[in-house]
Amino acid sequence: MSQPLRLGIAGLGTVGMGVVKIVQAHGDLLALRAGRPIAITAVSARDRTKNRDADLSGYAWETDPVALARRPDVDILIEVMGGENGPAKAATEAAIAAGKDIVTANKALLAHHGQALAEAAEAAGRVIRFEAAVAGGIPVIKALTEGLAGNAIRRVMGVMNGTCNYILTRMESAGLPYDHVFEEARQLGYLEADPNLDVGGIDAGHKLSLLAAIGFGTRVSFGAVELEGIGRISIDDIRRAADMGYRIKLLGVAQMTGRGLEQRMSPCLVPADSPLGQLQGGTNMVVLEGDSVGQIVLRGPGAGQGPTASAVMSDVIDIARGIRLPTFGQPATTLAEPIPAKAAAPAPFYLRMALADKPGALAKVATVLGEAGISIDRMRQYGHQDPTAPVLIVTHRTTRDAVDHALSRLPATGVVVGDPVAIRIESV
Amino acid sequence: MSQPLRLGIAGLGTVGMGVVKIVQAHGDLLALRAGRPIAITAVSARDRTKNRDADLSGYAWETDPVALARRPDVDILIEVMGGENGPAKAATEAAIAAGKDIVTANKALLAHHGQALAEAAEAAGRVIRFEAAVAGGIPVIKALTEGLAGNAIRRVMGVMNGTCNYILTRMESAGLPYDHVFEEARQLGYLEADPNLDVGGIDAGHKLSLLAAIGFGTRVSFGAVELEGIGRISIDDIRRAADMGYRIKLLGVAQMTGRGLEQRMSPCLVPADSPLGQLQGGTNMVVLEGDSVGQIVLRGPGAGQGPTASAVMSDVIDIARGIRLPTFGQPATTLAEPIPAKAAAPAPFYLRMALADKPGALAKVATVLGEAGISIDRMRQYGHQDPTAPVLIVTHRTTRDAVDHALSRLPATGVVVGDPVAIRIESV
Repeated sequence: MSQPLRLGIAGLGTVGMGVVKIVQAHGDLLALRAGRPIAITAVSARDRTKNRDADLSGYAWETDPVALARRPDVDILIEVMGGENGPAKAATEAAIAAGKDIVTANKALLAHHGQALAEAAEAAGRVIRFEAAVAGGIPVIKALTEGLAGNAIRRVMGVMNGTCNYILTRMESAGLPYDHVFEEARQLGYLEADPNLDVGGIDAGHKLSLLAAIGFGTRVSFGAVELEGIGRISIDDIRRAADMGYRIKLLGVAQMTGRGLEQRMSPCLVPADSPLGQLQGGTNMVVLEGDSVGQIVLRGPGAGQGPTASAVMSDVIDIARGIRLPTFGQPATTLAEPIPAKAAAPAPFYLRMALADKPGALAKVATVLGEAGISIDRMRQYGHQDPTAPVLIVTHRTTRDAVDHALSRLPATGVVVGDPVAIRIESV
Repeated sequence: MSQPLRLGIAGLGTVGMGVVKIVQAHGDLLALRAGRPIAITAVSARDRTKNRDADLSGYAWETDPVALARRPDVDILIEVMGGENGPAKAATEAAIAAGKDIVTANKALLAHHGQALAEAAEAAGRVIRFEAAVAGGIPVIKALTEGLAGNAIRRVMGVMNGTCNYILTRMESAGLPYDHVFEEARQLGYLEADPNLDVGGIDAGHKLSLLAAIGFGTRVSFGAVELEGIGRISIDDIRRAADMGYRIKLLGVAQMTGRGLEQRMSPCLVPADSPLGQLQGGTNMVVLEGDSVGQIVLRGPGAGQGPTASAVMSDVIDIARGIRLPTFGQPATTLAEPIPAKAAAPAPFYLRMALADKPGALAKVATVLGEAGISIDRMRQYGHQDPTAPVLIVTHRTTRDAVDHALSRLPATGVVVGDPVAIRIESV
């Protein structure tokens, strides 16, 4: 059997220690599958004294991940520190310069610097792999880059932030308001140090931008992702949407339209009985649509030590097996500069508003919608609560612009109390 | 850009023509992703005069697929004829002998001859790829062989025969008996020429045996798959199972137990609200469980021109990209001879029987079950219909042997009318 493939692990947090555990537990199995032994030679973390629940004494220790990346006894840098700049970026650049391959779980790094890093790696004949960066243990990068390589990709969708999905499903199942469940999630340790990375859709948006680059052969353009978080989703909307047969998800959608590349990460309604609608708790789901294959749905754990380390190891084993692909599935220099679509493709919308108890109130609303070119698919008015009555409307396919225009004209009717809510319904 | 990769397609039926269409439609995209052009140089089919809805005039024509396999201008034999012996086997063997790689959609061929073919190919330095052989367009071979390569696989499950799932879901939704829906399916062209390949579980069993070989590092042992078809599933059981919160699926399960490798393809009850339970119609689903990743669920079209050709093309592009793996993920000579488990792992069972209207009838049944060591989780007796009353029982975890023993003793009670039904409940 040939020489061991030597790993240097930068970052000994949850994911890094997960990789250590797999390598220590499955040496023979990995060697059999990879065709050569896989060995950890060096590790790096800030605090050497921390108790890490595994024997690290056989590995060289570096306090500086850049020094780790340059070690002659390291073939692959496993970058599992996180952060879009700082040590993660420095170590990755150093590894490429020193002729190492990279396996990373760092979606922020690639969402911001993916193009430059991919070009540098490819110029140096090295690979950057990042299965663990998107949807945790689900092998979605592989499914899209390799499994669906014979397809023109039509659309990529995903629920890719487990914390947001946990919050939304917990709001529904327990009937609790957003702020309450947000606080629960914080206490359970589900939230990032900056919670806006989760609930603002940034983390999931990073992931979407990477899938879009692979699917559509375009440069990663996280800056063009239309981001909207879940902070404004009310328990009222969750309940009313359920009444109409929908669930609310923080859903990422990327598609190439005649007007350019559309990338959105925002709350959407999806049919409650669809795979996306049925997704509960912290589980992730990615939907891939290709012209030949139709629709493929992948579901699995989006975070956690075992799943994320499983994804890292699949990249490591690929490299051990001699699988060497361009970072985004085609040479980085051939990736097109995407033209961001100015507006999302038309869709039905869910509208909720409170109507004053006045004669002709509903007719006035319908008139405003009609004047904005919006036709109504379904409408439901509930009994009066306090002085107002909740009204739900599901529109036919229309544009966000038309909806915003109509909403801006509703106050003048004098019959709508408070701010109406509009949420896109994504057809899945 | 380097030399084109040259395909010879043996079989111009649905799948073969699907491959032709993708290569003709997506030349530039494929070359960009594969790193080299992909070209069809020769094709083979029995009837040259048939109208095939695509221009084949640029390809050499062979009437004999073995001659196609030996052509010097063919790098990869695409074997999409089907059949476990005959021309498919001869052409595959000829291709290996002539130094070609193989991409096949032929589950029967590999289920019966996979070990010998893999050894021959690996000795010759060639690869055999078969993504299209299992679950159509779902990239499940890739997910298991590569995506989960860092895991000890715990269990592989799947609904992998769309026709059976169509029949079972149609029986439920339309309230129609098996024979009626079977006939519908035949008229719709959903059934193989020998319908037992579908409804007898053979086709799905072939697929399961291939997944088991990869997952557990064992030689393909289709002969050891416990097969049971759907022909005995009644509309009554489908309805009663639904009453208890379950759906009936033709479910494949492979797991390595302390008592050996268990491989079953048989009707099972699964929770109606689980992903497997929610699977409707001809769609396929595969569930992969690994020690690190937990559970991954893959869902997609299991048949049809586009999906199957998509899977074939993913193998072709892998080969073009220089990805060369052993057929079953580790060298064929290292695959272990599996010890077939003599009995399936314990599970809860669903029992249905008709009780005579006699005092103490239920007590007698409960006594027989108790004496067989079977304890009852839930029981439901319905009102009397004719002279008997339907009784449903969900047992706690027990063995098939205990269930069969209890069923054999029920007639002697004199209170059970007709044959009781017992179906395993698989925990998913």
